[in-house]
Amino acid sequence: MTDEYGQSDNSMGLFEAMYTARAMRWLKPDPIPDKVLQQVLEAATRAPNAGNRQNWLFMVVRDAEQRHRIGEIYQRVSLWVLQRYQHQGRPQNQSAAEYDRMMQGGMHLYEHMRDAPVLLVPCLRITPLELPAEIPPQVATAMREAYPWTAGASIYPALQNVILACRALGLGTVLTTNHTIAEDEIKQVLGLPPECRTFALMPIGYPERNFGPVKRRAVSEVAMVDRYGTPFSPSSE
Amino acid sequence: MTDEYGQSDNSMGLFEAMYTARAMRWLKPDPIPDKVLQQVLEAATRAPNAGNRQNWLFMVVRDAEQRHRIGEIYQRVSLWVLQRYQHQGRPQNQSAAEYDRMMQGGMHLYEHMRDAPVLLVPCLRITPLELPAEIPPQVATAMREAYPWTAGASIYPALQNVILACRALGLGTVLTTNHTIAEDEIKQVLGLPPECRTFALMPIGYPERNFGPVKRRAVSEVAMVDRYGTPFSPSSE
Repeated sequence: MTDEYGQSDNSMGLFEAMYTARAMRWLKPDPIPDKVLQQVLEAATRAPNAGNRQNWLFMVVRDAEQRHRIGEIYQRVSLWVLQRYQHQGRPQNQSAAEYDRMMQGGMHLYEHMRDAPVLLVPCLRITPLELPAEIPPQVATAMREAYPWTAGASIYPALQNVILACRALGLGTVLTTNHTIAEDEIKQVLGLPPECRTFALMPIGYPERNFGPVKRRAVSEVAMVDRYGTPFSPSSE
Repeated sequence: MTDEYGQSDNSMGLFEAMYTARAMRWLKPDPIPDKVLQQVLEAATRAPNAGNRQNWLFMVVRDAEQRHRIGEIYQRVSLWVLQRYQHQGRPQNQSAAEYDRMMQGGMHLYEHMRDAPVLLVPCLRITPLELPAEIPPQVATAMREAYPWTAGASIYPALQNVILACRALGLGTVLTTNHTIAEDEIKQVLGLPPECRTFALMPIGYPERNFGPVKRRAVSEVAMVDRYGTPFSPSSE
């Protein structure tokens, strides 16, 4: 029995999913049933995207050799990203223990990306901006400059739906982007046409560790009202 | 009474929220209680972000003059975006009626952005990539080129949480990016420091029209297995 949203288990509340969908870097190799993957992918497609053009493509990599190739590239480039992180140091908002746990999780993932039963590589079909002649040159320039920064608005919301749907279905995942440093190699492995750009690499599997509360700064530290400098707080009305 | 996720009403299921959070371009001017906004913003902060650095800043614009200034900029630049959309034409997957409704919604929003009781402008603090000397030049170049495309991975998932939390709390919103063509003007209005880049402009308010099913292509049309060219389907296992 499935409900009108295609779900056999619709019991998890929205806020519980959002508050407990911790990044999951330890995953079991156990396979994921196709019907469960279908639920995750369908949830992804319910996200917003520019002009509802749905220029997205979700590459679902299950083949062991393909996963091995992608995992090898991911591990290689991640060692450079690790150097960058170590150069930046620990963020102020993390304790040494939290930072160490995150870094260990990252390094575990570098080695074991290939072992997740599914690697999801979400793409967008990026075609050159075709602008009508009526648009003045300075506006056209501004559009072209803004484009790379905002293109992800048509794919990353879908990936949050992937994370939340996975959580509700008992699957773990994590949104990574290191592989984009080797974009051309990844595209070659997947046989992607030139117009497809990859935006993430998400291992998906049943979690080896527990879900748990996501730790974040207080809203008053990251939200401001009306003009820069005035913190948001529920009593600021 | 609130539950452990800070919610007074945790009754909406995750999938119901994802499947009915239609882009809402008709909003009532009625004010939103601060405590409700707090719930939306806190949900935003539960999203993933690179290295859990939480370099995000959520500008909550309620002041009528500030909303008017932003709305005027949005309307002006949106007329250029409208020309671009008209130049592109209707996407294959939309019927003429659906396309017309979306375009009418867009034009309504161009004029009425300023009337929403809250304009949310989510930002990231973007600092120049500081790379250690050990990273080879070609890797550094690849990192710098990939960066704008993937920066949004640290803010757009949070905006999907905003959309879903709004839905569960009876609020409507829509993720827009047109204003980024006039990024400098928007930053000046909000008094944002140079390192803050805006990634969206989201009007939030109680909806004037109904929530309803989000219409999207079938998964088999937008997902492929292992290599480009093989459609995903639940029977493809």
